[in-house]
Amino acid sequence: MPRQTLSQHPALQRMLAGFKGFRALYYEQRPERIKDLMEGSQRPEVLLIACSDSRVDPAIVTNAEPGELFIVRNVANLVPPYQPDDGYHGTSAAIEYAVTALKVAHVVVLGHSNCGGIQALAAHLDGHQVDGQFVGPWIRQLEGCRCASETTGDSTADATRLEQCAILNSLDNLMTFPFIAERVKDGTLTLNGWWFDMTEARLWGATPEHRTFQVLTD
Amino acid sequence: MPRQTLSQHPALQRMLAGFKGFRALYYEQRPERIKDLMEGSQRPEVLLIACSDSRVDPAIVTNAEPGELFIVRNVANLVPPYQPDDGYHGTSAAIEYAVTALKVAHVVVLGHSNCGGIQALAAHLDGHQVDGQFVGPWIRQLEGCRCASETTGDSTADATRLEQCAILNSLDNLMTFPFIAERVKDGTLTLNGWWFDMTEARLWGATPEHRTFQVLTD
Amino acid sequence: MPRQTLSQHPALQRMLAGFKGFRALYYEQRPERIKDLMEGSQRPEVLLIACSDSRVDPAIVTNAEPGELFIVRNVANLVPPYQPDDGYHGTSAAIEYAVTALKVAHVVVLGHSNCGGIQALAAHLDGHQVDGQFVGPWIRQLEGCRCASETTGDSTADATRLEQCAILNSLDNLMTFPFIAERVKDGTLTLNGWWFDMTEARLWGATPEHRTFQVLTD
Amino acid sequence: MPRQTLSQHPALQRMLAGFKGFRALYYEQRPERIKDLMEGSQRPEVLLIACSDSRVDPAIVTNAEPGELFIVRNVANLVPPYQPDDGYHGTSAAIEYAVTALKVAHVVVLGHSNCGGIQALAAHLDGHQVDGQFVGPWIRQLEGCRCASETTGDSTADATRLEQCAILNSLDNLMTFPFIAERVKDGTLTLNGWWFDMTEARLWGATPEHRTFQVLTD
Repeated sequence: MPRQTLSQHPALQRMLAGFKGFRALYYEQRPERIKDLMEGSQRPEVLLIACSDSRVDPAIVTNAEPGELFIVRNVANLVPPYQPDDGYHGTSAAIEYAVTALKVAHVVVLGHSNCGGIQALAAHLDGHQVDGQFVGPWIRQLEGCRCASETTGDSTADATRLEQCAILNSLDNLMTFPFIAERVKDGTLTLNGWWFDMTEARLWGATPEHRTFQVLTD
Repeated sequence: MPRQTLSQHPALQRMLAGFKGFRALYYEQRPERIKDLMEGSQRPEVLLIACSDSRVDPAIVTNAEPGELFIVRNVANLVPPYQPDDGYHGTSAAIEYAVTALKVAHVVVLGHSNCGGIQALAAHLDGHQVDGQFVGPWIRQLEGCRCASETTGDSTADATRLEQCAILNSLDNLMTFPFIAERVKDGTLTLNGWWFDMTEARLWGATPEHRTFQVLTD
Repeated sequence: MPRQTLSQHPALQRMLAGFKGFRALYYEQRPERIKDLMEGSQRPEVLLIACSDSRVDPAIVTNAEPGELFIVRNVANLVPPYQPDDGYHGTSAAIEYAVTALKVAHVVVLGHSNCGGIQALAAHLDGHQVDGQFVGPWIRQLEGCRCASETTGDSTADATRLEQCAILNSLDNLMTFPFIAERVKDGTLTLNGWWFDMTEARLWGATPEHRTFQVLTD
Repeated sequence: MPRQTLSQHPALQRMLAGFKGFRALYYEQRPERIKDLMEGSQRPEVLLIACSDSRVDPAIVTNAEPGELFIVRNVANLVPPYQPDDGYHGTSAAIEYAVTALKVAHVVVLGHSNCGGIQALAAHLDGHQVDGQFVGPWIRQLEGCRCASETTGDSTADATRLEQCAILNSLDNLMTFPFIAERVKDGTLTLNGWWFDMTEARLWGATPEHRTFQVLTD
């Protein structure tokens, strides 16, 4: 089959052109920056759990280089609670691998404003049905979280509170994983919740102990 | 609490410095490129399912811009089969949201060489136990896939075959989702498997119909 | 002759690899950003006169895109006085072209700390001979400028003062060109002096009227 | 005077925002890449002589990093012949400094298609007057160069020939500088002429010995 028919669509061609640029600039122009990394093993210091939202790409938003961030992305950057059965737990598997095999030193849960998943949750809390056989159960993980019952009627403020509360809920769920609680206790792992205000271009942060979000960047 | 104690670690400071650069270059210098996007809705054309591996960041590897790629990342870029129960299916939820709500036109499953998850699978197929309460079941999803029983003894070739086979398996699993099969059938959605050879800096591609990987970029 | 022997040296190969990346990212991936520009005419708004110093590249330092800055670079970012004879006046020719043909709206003279040209001038003012048949006369253009006779004995402070004074001298020389004085007077052209403190990573600015440099970026 | 009135114009604000991004990404995020360079001395390997044209920025076109290229830019990337009088020879001073003080190993003269300076020369050769008190004499440096008298009537081909001929002329003029001829002879300096075809996105190269331009990048 002719190669061009494999990926002839403009959006895919654009990705392939981007790959050619990446190859030229990283492999050809400055191989010293990535050669050992690409031929050896990864040693990221950070596990980042982010939303799948196309506007909040962690590598773009933090100007990361290859090798720096081990990244899980799902709808609304959720961490489910520890549930060691035989099910397929994609997020938990990635967390386990990052913490126990790669021994990252930091976990960052990165949420954001204007999150579609959280908007679906808000609608659900208002009595509307969430569309989706999978999105529904996934997002309803949050219905028990503390702030879910507090609404002010100001939809933007409510959304922000829910988004930040969901981040804290993920941090709390991380602490239910024994291998995480243990490392946090002995000081070899930190847990961080960050919220990206996409309109104001600011990052806010909290931790399991300091649960009020504060601006991290002036 | 003083802000600096929230994220004082060098790896986190580096991410915050990167964010400041992102903000200056996107929000201040060239707001025209992202303003509507950040204040409005996302309209990505592509759902990309990639590995959590820090070396294979899709935005870096394809030089993506904010808004272009809706991204799911998990260990070994796996798509589980359609399983519409009430469990927490993070990958399936993201796929459902991208396809039915955002109406992406393309799905790309992006695998890569030297994949730790696939190495764990290879070890398992060789009779070794896979470490991890979550990684084990997650990666054993693949034990029934066609090529799992074919080994040549050449470990690099075996790894490549498993990595590519896992991508095809994910494409096949995508087709078990009714909302995907239907859109593929009516021509509004394409499924693409890409394999990134990290050593040679090449992208290879296949589709559900053309299952032999071919070089996509010279 | 075989192509590779033309540019086989590593430093040149690195430039060619960078060009391949540029081509992939600009011409192939996002042609909409430059196509009209590359096939049509330039319409820069800014004439920038900068030093040849490899550390102070204006496009890198301001994250410019193709088409934004019309750039002259010489040792110590000097503008000679208006001298309309038949000599070869490279800097004056570029200024004339930018202002009268391209009709830029702003001129920026960008100097910097730790400037080798200014260090040569300081040595000359101290009674040492400046090396160089061409560098000598070029840099001695400045010996009449106001601050040349004021030294404090603090070599860093002296260097900063000379660097900033040289920028003001270039702004004053720009005003000796009739086609510039006229446009400044009628408000269609602004003259700006910027000084890049390379150690502190700050930009300072002055104008012909406001001759004390002030920090431009927090 | 309030700082904002110094540089309140959008084009200048855009440059300052770019500078803030540069500072965040280079000085704060990855200081290890530039710290020694910015606090110490430059050691570029390449002297690049390029056109002032805003579309042909050498750092953008070759993806250069700070410290790599010592750059002279003037109209049409001309090198005047060796003329050791007391005049202000900006291009010669920069060449002298790069070769004798910085001891670069390579000189690249980078010309390009669709060059306004060369179009002015073509008009002059056709009997039209070149506008400009400075542009005129500057560009008429080329009137004696070999190809100036050969026209085919095909204006694109003529322009390309003139552009490439002007590059060769600059290489020949470089050889009239004793300190260059000597280093070329003893093999410590190479002279290279590159021509950037902006429409086709290709680089072509020649040298003083191999005067027919060949494609450098596939």
